Amino acid sequence: MASITIIGTGAMANAIGGIFAEGGHDVAHVRRDEVGTAPLTGDVVVLAVPYAALAGIAEAYREQLAGKTVVDITNPLDFETFDALVVPAGSSAAAELQAALPGSQVVKAFNTNFAATLGAKEVGGLPTTVLVAGDDAAAKETLISLVRSGGLAAHDAGPLDRAHELEAIGFLQLTLAVGEQVPWTGGFAVAR
Amino acid sequence: MASITIIGTGAMANAIGGIFAEGGHDVAHVRRDEVGTAPLTGDVVVLAVPYAALAGIAEAYREQLAGKTVVDITNPLDFETFDALVVPAGSSAAAELQAALPGSQVVKAFNTNFAATLGAKEVGGLPTTVLVAGDDAAAKETLISLVRSGGLAAHDAGPLDRAHELEAIGFLQLTLAVGEQVPWTGGFAVAR
Repeated sequence: MASITIIGTGAMANAIGGIFAEGGHDVAHVRRDEVGTAPLTGDVVVLAVPYAALAGIAEAYREQLAGKTVVDITNPLDFETFDALVVPAGSSAAAELQAALPGSQVVKAFNTNFAATLGAKEVGGLPTTVLVAGDDAAAKETLISLVRSGGLAAHDAGPLDRAHELEAIGFLQLTLAVGEQVPWTGGFAVAR
Repeated sequence: MASITIIGTGAMANAIGGIFAEGGHDVAHVRRDEVGTAPLTGDVVVLAVPYAALAGIAEAYREQLAGKTVVDITNPLDFETFDALVVPAGSSAAAELQAALPGSQVVKAFNTNFAATLGAKEVGGLPTTVLVAGDDAAAKETLISLVRSGGLAAHDAGPLDRAHELEAIGFLQLTLAVGEQVPWTGGFAVAR
């Protein structure tokens, strides 16, 4: 049984927590107004918060997060224009987070999944698939196993550099949903 | 009935030609060894060639392609390392092609589809979906209609800037296939 702390209590936080709980793991949530005061007890910490909150969390918890697997789920979109990302071209939110947390093993995951498809475990009749990128093989394998234990599919999407591509997918999927070309219960599926 | 010229005779060229032919349109192919000599008779010209061939085609056909819809299907991947794109960060092959063909309406499409899924018209039980990005609304709408006439789904993925994101999806999908995490008959599907 793994011990997981999820910062955040929104739809994504709840959906991700539900997956791990279903896999039989110990899941604790930290509310955003508890950031900096609540201890992070889990070996895996999921930052289920908007991109803008990452820097403050890294600052508040840098020492506690050292040695832990830290999961970044964000889509660093300019939500005013829906026409650009707010990270530098070629970079990613996950790369920025890894730079801010040099002692942690940062993994990118869940940003290509809508919350509803995490809860339903299927999208368009295909198993919901979580794409996971990271440089630490053990951390990545741990997260992939946790996701699969909850009944979803997971793929190794490569090194943390691939977070750029995962964030591109998340960006495009959000624009398709906002443009009502796909529903929030649909979007990208992975066919095997 | 539309008139379409496809440069290239590979798997993607044949699959794309098959879609348009099934839609009742006039499809002509130009072999790569005919580039520069064969006339481009179609109103829509699909460059079904590797990224490295785009610059030479643009140079050879700049005047003939003026006023036409030009479809870029490439994934500008470093095929030696499978770890990077060969276009500048934040840019895209399609943006480069548009710059090289200022009189043409460049549209990005088909680069997120494997040839087998274009032929089968389905991927994982879902309709194969072509994502189309471009700045010229009429050109984009023409291509979307052509794809749908051949029995596939198509979505407007936004302005030509979104070609960056489409190429990121194509890149990631290729790495998943080469890593045998998805088959060449599978990959990304779009659930509605």
